Order: sequence, then structure tokens, then C-alpha cells
Amino acid sequence: MPRKVDHEWRRAEITDAVVRLAGRSGLSGVTFREVAAEAGISVALVQRYFETKRNLILRTAEAVSIGMTDRFVGRLAKLGPDGPILDRLRELALSFLPTDEESRRALIFYHQVGAVGLTDPTMRGVEAHGRADRLVDLVADMLRQGQELAEVDDTVDAIVEARILLALMVGLSLSVLLENQDLDQVTTAIDSQLARLRRIPLPGKTNRMIQREVSSRSTRSIESGMSVWDRSSRHRPR
Amino acid sequence: MPRKVDHEWRRAEITDAVVRLAGRSGLSGVTFREVAAEAGISVALVQRYFETKRNLILRTAEAVSIGMTDRFVGRLAKLGPDGPILDRLRELALSFLPTDEESRRALIFYHQVGAVGLTDPTMRGVEAHGRADRLVDLVADMLRQGQELAEVDDTVDAIVEARILLALMVGLSLSVLLENQDLDQVTTAIDSQLARLRRIPLPGKTNRMIQREVSSRSTRSIESGMSVWDRSSRHRPR
Repeated sequence: MPRKVDHEWRRAEITDAVVRLAGRSGLSGVTFREVAAEAGISVALVQRYFETKRNLILRTAEAVSIGMTDRFVGRLAKLGPDGPILDRLRELALSFLPTDEESRRALIFYHQVGAVGLTDPTMRGVEAHGRADRLVDLVADMLRQGQELAEVDDTVDAIVEARILLALMVGLSLSVLLENQDLDQVTTAIDSQLARLRRIPLPGKTNRMIQREVSSRSTRSIESGMSVWDRSSRHRPR
Repeated sequence: MPRKVDHEWRRAEITDAVVRLAGRSGLSGVTFREVAAEAGISVALVQRYFETKRNLILRTAEAVSIGMTDRFVGRLAKLGPDGPILDRLRELALSFLPTDEESRRALIFYHQVGAVGLTDPTMRGVEAHGRADRLVDLVADMLRQGQELAEVDDTVDAIVEARILLALMVGLSLSVLLENQDLDQVTTAIDSQLARLRRIPLPGKTNRMIQREVSSRSTRSIESGMSVWDRSSRHRPR
């Protein structure tokens, strides 16, 4: 196995241990000693790879962010390349919910990093939260696309709507994790919010008919927009 | 000064110190020693009043919750007893935003307690988050009232809408604190979401005209609903 791959595998093993630990006892439970024990390696090795606790948290946030993106991309892929925009947005929203152990841990980590960022501005630029603007732009682009394809109500302001949807997703995922709502209630909320964005078909002309009139180039630009987001999340600053 | 009042004043002095400390360095910076130094009293005195760190956090969350309720009630009072329902909901939403130093600290504390609750289920029942259900019921009651008064679109499901609004408020307040959005953007988002709930007036009959036809008893029941919420937040568990 080439050395680089080996290093990446080792780093992933360590950041996975961080996410498991943080999911059990919070970020305050993340120490080099505990991480080493959880990963089954030496403290010296964890230190060699990550140097500081801050760096360990940042790199783990980055790994969690990549995992969430992969999750979303995987859900989108199931819809095929021409899935309706509102269905795509639904997949995006659902991929931010704690529906299994992996997403549950990822979201707990995401919210914990957010809580640290409340009092430590140097932690606000981390992957998990620093890409908020790009995510708003992605959702806004999808909504504009939907308007062009006559699937989304063209009276809504795409940027405002994108900010609403993303803030809603943050609040809903938190309420599931804190057991104030269950997954069914939250899914109903997402569907209800998205249903409002749907364009009401014109009499005598279905949305699908209008859609066929619109060039298919626009679908391409969404895919490339997502790739930018995807690529940037894979960019390793270190 | 009677002894009881003196004790309450002392407790408030200590929980204020906790909120200031947590706003600067997070809940992990809240120790008996630091709290005592911040409040300018002895460590023994802090321990005598609150015994454990957990109790200190719980009682502070309760105090913060009461402060947020007072803030909301104060904003409502400015609207007068017959303010339109959507204006009332707007005041509720805005009272959950960090618009000054006090609300900023309160919301940081609220989100920090939420983050602790992610991995510590015993902290999920605290005032700040434990009353989520009651808040959903309050907002749903307001929406139903608005439907009865012909101010709110009667096709919306009041409970689902209440859950959406509250989750949105949590997400928006967090995005302001993390500097992903500013207050103007968030206020626009709230207004946009509320505008969708407004009932479109029937031709030839304004909502205000329909409203006059509806008995005023319903407004009373909202006030009493809020009082229940208000009272319960003032209830001091042991």
C-alpha cells in the first residue's frame, strides 16, 4: 500500500474515533489520551498526525462534512439526473437528519462544533459551518433552476428561501437529536415547507410540458454547482 | 430586606455571573471558582446556594428561560391586547434573536445547554429545552386563533406550522450567533415565512371585517395560554 494512502487511512481511523468519542461524551471528552485509546493506537501517534486538539477537531469537522456531502450526493444519485428540483431539495433536507447511527454521530459533531464556535470565533470558519454560504448558494441555484423549469413558484426569492430552508434543517435536526420531535414529525415539516414552494400548474398546461420547453442545459449547471461544493469540501487546507 | 428576597437576589447575582462566563468561554469555563470570582463572592457561598455544577447550570437555564419569556411578553405588550396574530408571532420570533447583549448571552447559553443535551440526556429536560412542547402548543394555538379570526390561511396545519416556525427560529438565531447571517437577513426570512401564512382576503370583504364578526373571547384564550407558559417557566422545581 503506498505511504500516502496509508497515512489517509490512519487519519480517518483517528477522526472516526473523535466522532465516536464526541458522540458519547461531548467535545470536552476529546483528549489525545482518550482518542488514542478509542482508536487503539499510541498517544504519540495521534499527536504526530494532528499536533493540537484544535487541529484534531478541525480535521474531524472536515471529515464529517465530507461524509455528509457523500451522503447527500448518494441520495441524489438515486433520483437520477433529471429528478424534479423539489425532490432533490427533499433529499438534501433529509440527508441532514439523524436517520442512522452514522448521520446521528455526524450531526451531533456538527452541532457541538457550532456550540464551540459560539464563544470561539476561530472555530467558526471550520468546514462544518464555514461552508454555510456555499450551501445557501447551492440551494438558491436549485430553486432558480426549479423556477426556470416551472417546478418552483416563481414569486419566491431564491436566496431568502434557501436561507429559510437551511435554518429550518438545522433547527429540525437539533430537535430530533434533543428528542423534542421524532423523524416522522420532522419529515412532515420538511414536506409541508417544500410543498409551498411548488408552482401551481397553469390550466391546460402541465409543469412537465413547460419543463420540456426549457433547455436541459440548466440541469447541467446545478450538477456543476454541486461539484464545486463537493470539491471544495474535499479540499484539504493543511 | 426580608431574608427570602435577599436569597433570590443572591441567586440571580450568581446565575448572571454564569451566563456572562458561559458567553465568554463556554460552559466548560463555568467552575465554582470562576463563578465566584465573576460574581465577586466566595466559592463557599456559590456552593452553598447551588451545591453541584449541574444544579448551577439547570438553575441558570431556568433564569435565562424566564428572561426570554419576559422579553417576549414585553414585546407583545407593546402591540396591545388586540394586535394581529401574525404581528404577535413576529414578536415571538424576533424575541428569539440576539438583538442586544442580554439576548445574545441568553441565546448563547440556550444553545450551549442544547449542545450538552446532545450527549447528556439528563440535561435535555432543563427549562430552556424542556418546554419545547409547550412552546409548540402556544404557537399552534395562536395560529388556530388567527384562522378563526380570518387572519391566517385556514389550509395550514397549525401544529406542523408551529414546529416549522420554532425550528426555523432556532436555526436562524444560531446562524446570527455564528455570523453566517446578519439580523436584517434573518428578519427578512421570518417576514417571508410569516407572509405565507397570511390569509388572502376574500373579494369585497377584508380580513378586518371578518375579524369583527368573530367574538373577542378567542383573544382572551391566547392570553391565558401564554400565562400558563409564563407561569410554568416561573415554577421553580427543586
